[in-house]
Amino acid sequence: MNNYQHILLAADFSEHGLTVAKKAQHLAHQHQAKLSIIHIIDNLPITDTTYGPIIPFDMDLNDLLMTAAKNKLAELSKTLNIPEQQQHLEMGSASLEITNIAEENNVDLIILGSHGRHGLALLLGSTANSVLHHAKCDVLAVRLQDN
Amino acid sequence: MNNYQHILLAADFSEHGLTVAKKAQHLAHQHQAKLSIIHIIDNLPITDTTYGPIIPFDMDLNDLLMTAAKNKLAELSKTLNIPEQQQHLEMGSASLEITNIAEENNVDLIILGSHGRHGLALLLGSTANSVLHHAKCDVLAVRLQDN
Repeated sequence: MNNYQHILLAADFSEHGLTVAKKAQHLAHQHQAKLSIIHIIDNLPITDTTYGPIIPFDMDLNDLLMTAAKNKLAELSKTLNIPEQQQHLEMGSASLEITNIAEENNVDLIILGSHGRHGLALLLGSTANSVLHHAKCDVLAVRLQDN
Repeated sequence: MNNYQHILLAADFSEHGLTVAKKAQHLAHQHQAKLSIIHIIDNLPITDTTYGPIIPFDMDLNDLLMTAAKNKLAELSKTLNIPEQQQHLEMGSASLEITNIAEENNVDLIILGSHGRHGLALLLGSTANSVLHHAKCDVLAVRLQDN
């Protein structure tokens, strides 16, 4: 088997995310692979529990989110020595954006964090599952401790 | 990040399975990790489409399946230089057996094949998802081409 050529790190900015990022950096080094990074901002509408979605984020809030995320992404990318043209910031469906960017950039390994089945974990886990289903390349799920 | 110490290859005996096996061998070599292998025989009852399960496999058939699988496993393990004490053959739920053996043997990376969403792929894919959810360690899903 050949080494991986282009690794895409699906980053979140939690402490856990840093663990995943370090593994991605280590593997990219081992494989002498190009390392790119992507962060997805979920564009969730604000919802009312009784009536469902009522107030979608307005553009100003989206802009604020984008700016904050862009700074965090630049910060993490600097730590990982990832140049700006290999930094991707998207808003929308995590699994869709991750798999699209992976395909567009001939990524052969996606690395992301995977949680267990508790609390928020189900939601996060489902993203990993969805990426697993839709990715046309290998996927490394880095197990994160839930406690 | 440290290298992986103990990699568990979830093997099937298809042509695809050999691709996954070679990646596992390559990664184990890179990480200087111990490589173990597991194969699961699904113990599916014979079913009648109208009345559901009616005839479970009898022991003779199970024995035949076990013997055939044991030979295949030994053959593949020889190719990968995996000693007998690191070969696991189980019958039952794939994801359950894989994650159990992984925990019992302090495995820190499970490697398995992952298919797309077509035909048999859904079933196979669901095993990968289930392992992803239940494993207490990292999981590398090697994407297999469905066509």
